[in-house]
Amino acid sequence: MSKSNVEPHLIVVFGATGDLFHRKLLPALFRLVKRRAEPVPYRILGVARRGDLDDASFRMLCAKALESAGVAESDSARAPFLAALDYQTLQDGVEDSYRSLAERIDALETAHRLPHNRIFYLALPPQAFPATIAGLGAVGLNRSAGFTRLVIEKPFGRDLATARELNALVHTAFEEPQVYRIDHYLGKETVQNLFVFRFANALFEPIWNRDRIEHVQITVSEELGVESRAGYYEQAGALRDMVQNHLTQLLCLTAMEPPAQFEADAIRNEKVKVLRSIAPISEDDVVFGQYTPGNVDGAQVRGYLGETGVAPESKTETFVALKLAVSNWRWQGVPFYLRTGKRMPKRLSQITVSFRCPPVSMFQPFNTCVLSSNQLVITVQPDEGFDLVFEVKAPGDSMTMRSQRMQYRYHEHFETLPDGYETLLRDVIVGDQTLFVRADEVEKSWELFTPVLERARAVHGYAAGSWGPAAAERLVVSEDHRWVQR
Amino acid sequence: MSKSNVEPHLIVVFGATGDLFHRKLLPALFRLVKRRAEPVPYRILGVARRGDLDDASFRMLCAKALESAGVAESDSARAPFLAALDYQTLQDGVEDSYRSLAERIDALETAHRLPHNRIFYLALPPQAFPATIAGLGAVGLNRSAGFTRLVIEKPFGRDLATARELNALVHTAFEEPQVYRIDHYLGKETVQNLFVFRFANALFEPIWNRDRIEHVQITVSEELGVESRAGYYEQAGALRDMVQNHLTQLLCLTAMEPPAQFEADAIRNEKVKVLRSIAPISEDDVVFGQYTPGNVDGAQVRGYLGETGVAPESKTETFVALKLAVSNWRWQGVPFYLRTGKRMPKRLSQITVSFRCPPVSMFQPFNTCVLSSNQLVITVQPDEGFDLVFEVKAPGDSMTMRSQRMQYRYHEHFETLPDGYETLLRDVIVGDQTLFVRADEVEKSWELFTPVLERARAVHGYAAGSWGPAAAERLVVSEDHRWVQR
Repeated sequence: MSKSNVEPHLIVVFGATGDLFHRKLLPALFRLVKRRAEPVPYRILGVARRGDLDDASFRMLCAKALESAGVAESDSARAPFLAALDYQTLQDGVEDSYRSLAERIDALETAHRLPHNRIFYLALPPQAFPATIAGLGAVGLNRSAGFTRLVIEKPFGRDLATARELNALVHTAFEEPQVYRIDHYLGKETVQNLFVFRFANALFEPIWNRDRIEHVQITVSEELGVESRAGYYEQAGALRDMVQNHLTQLLCLTAMEPPAQFEADAIRNEKVKVLRSIAPISEDDVVFGQYTPGNVDGAQVRGYLGETGVAPESKTETFVALKLAVSNWRWQGVPFYLRTGKRMPKRLSQITVSFRCPPVSMFQPFNTCVLSSNQLVITVQPDEGFDLVFEVKAPGDSMTMRSQRMQYRYHEHFETLPDGYETLLRDVIVGDQTLFVRADEVEKSWELFTPVLERARAVHGYAAGSWGPAAAERLVVSEDHRWVQR
Repeated sequence: MSKSNVEPHLIVVFGATGDLFHRKLLPALFRLVKRRAEPVPYRILGVARRGDLDDASFRMLCAKALESAGVAESDSARAPFLAALDYQTLQDGVEDSYRSLAERIDALETAHRLPHNRIFYLALPPQAFPATIAGLGAVGLNRSAGFTRLVIEKPFGRDLATARELNALVHTAFEEPQVYRIDHYLGKETVQNLFVFRFANALFEPIWNRDRIEHVQITVSEELGVESRAGYYEQAGALRDMVQNHLTQLLCLTAMEPPAQFEADAIRNEKVKVLRSIAPISEDDVVFGQYTPGNVDGAQVRGYLGETGVAPESKTETFVALKLAVSNWRWQGVPFYLRTGKRMPKRLSQITVSFRCPPVSMFQPFNTCVLSSNQLVITVQPDEGFDLVFEVKAPGDSMTMRSQRMQYRYHEHFETLPDGYETLLRDVIVGDQTLFVRADEVEKSWELFTPVLERARAVHGYAAGSWGPAAAERLVVSEDHRWVQR
């Protein structure tokens, strides 16, 4: 995030015939290379099981993928980028196959005079992680004369035990400073800007605490249903898929203390401190939901149980709302409400900080405050920006207040925001771990949510196109709050 | 400002053939009457020296004035409004003439069944105040069976001695609760909204003090020169014309403590407390300027000394900048910079609150802050609104900050803002003194500025179309600050 020194390197992508590589990583790598002020020698080696591909046909596949991503053939950066791609077949769990990969890497580095700086990107389903990591370790690809970095996509475990197991496996071959666990939410500009917003602006820090803030809401909603991902989703659910990683990251960035320095471990230490301060989540403070048939954007849609690949009696949650207590000096007594769901009225990722009311309302003497409270709204997507909701006097006769918004929208001031993957890949290449999740962070998060996952649960139905089950309303109303979006 | 009970009334305007009445008061009265949800019996009696006018010809004059103000003949509210106007000749300082006025008032009240609620509006040059006030007192028009209110336009005195004299004269005939001293700045919506902004929003009060605020700037600039007003202006100058009243009011509203209630005297008590806390102004903390020939909006314009009616060696200031110290618990050590001038690059009334920098910059470790400080900008005119200047991360590679603005503009949210005079006349009619200047307020303000006026002075030239003399820059630079507009 702050380093910028790019050394010549080789990127090895496992899962090079997969969707993630073609839709996200390849276009991001292309933009990254194109954006560089000075060219840096690099190669990208695609690795997958398919034996019917060679370098040439792989490049053709990649050319199509770039095409779909809007990179025209006329783009002069396209041909040299495609020429930097190679392909290598790999057989799962076969050590010889990893040896061949090691030889191919050596050969490429020799041919292109690369100084053994290597990035292994696991763009793979989680069940393929162990064999790949073990394979890399077995043939010595976990070390090199240059740097060797390992990038792991989510999900990182499915509970505390599996996360610990995976960390242990990673650490048999790699040291933690080599490991880059991706949470693509952290690549988003607005999320990174949370740091800046909080620590480069003196205005907010003095009021960023229990004395001034009444509660915090984090909503990540999707309009889409489970789509074609029921196979994965039935095993995951909203808590694993969204809360344990994305929403927890947003919570940590909102609640953390100022780090000693703007540096990866200093920041991650502070995030872990937040996680350590969160009280165990009681049963009453979680609401699970599952969407039933309803109406989204004017179209009738199926319920979750009617989706292809979903078990007829599935208890998998497509919605979850939680109330968390961050029990430290800064936040004790300030509820953090987290909520995420599929088939909600719109796609939105938003953090809303609600400030306390003025202690007295001088506009209605001797009454405690009946004014709307001020809010700071941080929108992560879509339409990234900041809103400050405040009271103004309505012009005219009497002293009437109106809640109004001061607004700031990125797109009005900056032409394009880099894609999250571009940011994250850049950081892997320069060796900045700030935006990646550390082993202890992952484990602390699972420590918090695993008991919630393991408890018997009620799953409340909610109509597709609504803001979730009524029980989620009651979660906040009990404290005299309400969801900002509802 | 908060009361709303309108009783039947008679408004007597002295100076009914003058510019202020025709351009400002008459249109404001018209809109006020038209806007009323329920009709209230009222009459308006114009008073002036001219003996050649009667009710009919006065109404014709007024019809023309309304026309110029954009009130079309087709407006159905126009005819009944004009029919409510009458005219009365008055000879300055002739007691019989005031007796005739009293008889006319009685006659009108009888004819129209008005309950002796009277408002005397002195739309007169200041030299006419004493005779008029004395005349009203002499014939008993200072009291009635209903309410009697006296409205006085600025300037209220030209130094402490004359202000005290005028107050004493007013108080021989009227009690202070009857007196409405107009500062038309206080009628502006944004100025009133300063109350709401500060005391209905919990967000700002905790940071509204010396711990969080570095300095405050108040700029009231005009593009116009002295125009046809040299006769008055040569005797006044910028300090009397703008600072002692308008800028001082803006300062008081910015700096005051929360009043016990939203009520006229509670608020004015707090404003007087601010004035009492301002330290005597030292010679080094004042810069006088006078515009020289220059360029405004692409046109070459004369210097002040070249204007018609200006003495060739005039030392009258058309610009003044001051540094004030509000020495109380809230503000000690926070400079308040005030600045006003004619022939500046644009017309602008703006309060800028500059917050302190973050105590450390974690983006440049071990350095004290080199970030831009946050600012809250309150624009009173034109384009009324609020801006919050804050730092965001520029999207892309490195940790680069940019100062950006969250914005709120009234005109984007409310169709029309009532004219200041409309607001003020409404408040006089309902008997709300909140937006009017109390006797002790006026005197405290003169107490502060009279020594500055009486000292020998250097008057620095500044080119028309510039932000004032270089000396005014030095005033703020000495503290490591700078004018926001420059």
